[in-house]
Amino acid sequence: MKRNAVALTLLAITLTSIAQETDRRHIVLKRPPAFANLPFSDGVLTGDTLYIGGHIGVDPKTGQPPADAAEEARLAVEGVKETLAAAGMTMDDLVSVQVFCSDLSLYDTFNKVYQSYFHGDYPARAFIGSGKLLRGGRYEVLGIAVKKRK
Amino acid sequence: MKRNAVALTLLAITLTSIAQETDRRHIVLKRPPAFANLPFSDGVLTGDTLYIGGHIGVDPKTGQPPADAAEEARLAVEGVKETLAAAGMTMDDLVSVQVFCSDLSLYDTFNKVYQSYFHGDYPARAFIGSGKLLRGGRYEVLGIAVKKRK
Amino acid sequence: MKRNAVALTLLAITLTSIAQETDRRHIVLKRPPAFANLPFSDGVLTGDTLYIGGHIGVDPKTGQPPADAAEEARLAVEGVKETLAAAGMTMDDLVSVQVFCSDLSLYDTFNKVYQSYFHGDYPARAFIGSGKLLRGGRYEVLGIAVKKRK
Repeated sequence: MKRNAVALTLLAITLTSIAQETDRRHIVLKRPPAFANLPFSDGVLTGDTLYIGGHIGVDPKTGQPPADAAEEARLAVEGVKETLAAAGMTMDDLVSVQVFCSDLSLYDTFNKVYQSYFHGDYPARAFIGSGKLLRGGRYEVLGIAVKKRK
Repeated sequence: MKRNAVALTLLAITLTSIAQETDRRHIVLKRPPAFANLPFSDGVLTGDTLYIGGHIGVDPKTGQPPADAAEEARLAVEGVKETLAAAGMTMDDLVSVQVFCSDLSLYDTFNKVYQSYFHGDYPARAFIGSGKLLRGGRYEVLGIAVKKRK
Repeated sequence: MKRNAVALTLLAITLTSIAQETDRRHIVLKRPPAFANLPFSDGVLTGDTLYIGGHIGVDPKTGQPPADAAEEARLAVEGVKETLAAAGMTMDDLVSVQVFCSDLSLYDTFNKVYQSYFHGDYPARAFIGSGKLLRGGRYEVLGIAVKKRK
């Protein structure tokens, strides 16, 4: 009988976990006024998986990219990091990243900033030369994260 | 003994659900003749997750984009919506969307069309200036949807 | 009592499977010297899902794209295939693919190479005209695979 109770308790845990996989939470970060009311969430968390939308590197007050390309890379990655934080995750939970870049000569500049955000293995990544990006940005960064079990 | 039966029944449900996660269904919509035999599915459903390929906004009969940019946006989003419908889903099941656009001046035009398809929170989204798109299209829209539990 | 034991054994299998879903394995293929120490994995496997980064079609020795566009397509797809193989998967496990291409006139050339890699239904796919790609490449190919249950 005790075993039965254990089995049912474990089952309850299992089923809850599966149910949560299809629940979702929409994450909308604080945005510069120019970005208010635009039709996207910064991230959507469903189960253990967080889908992160495209983040450009803009000054949070002006909504414009800074003059410095390294600082712009930092701001773009910070948008991803803040979305992760809102879901209780860190950069090390990322499994996949896409970087769109309107000027491929900034590859090393971006990489130097980007790699400072990780402590171990890197996510899979695509680095793609794009056309023009919104707000005249040099980078747009998006990704998928899956919460690591400890 | 009854508890045993309940436990085993619940287990059967659980295991079925997990097995379904790795089954898959390939969705191929009806296509204009010019698109027949191209090597892609419109979507692949595995478990609760639907991976939707890139949809451009073409007239279903001619396979060409219409002159009007808002109508082209509508046709591209309709391709995504039809793929969702074939998997028993709606636009509100989308968790992540990527929009590639060959002319960023159409950002507001696209957004106006796009937001009319949603009833609540928006998916995460990236909006990326691309190079030229197939068939001379202005937009290509793709995404990932996870079936919502009621 | 025997049924109890069966129930608990099945539960153990179930819970192990769920735990594995959030474990991950970082796949890093052998790279040309010019690509060593770059901040990305070729793929990240978490549970049954493999996230594959962007692969360009370069000669493994020189790190440069070959002159022939079909051979370059083959090399790019081979990078994806090798990443899949390292995770115990094949091209037929792919559910979603993105192809970025700096020259849309190569659409048919790419398709001819690409379709030779599949044995049945195709993954969902987006084919997007990009800006310039790294190393002057013509293609960058990425995707998501979910291990098929037999």
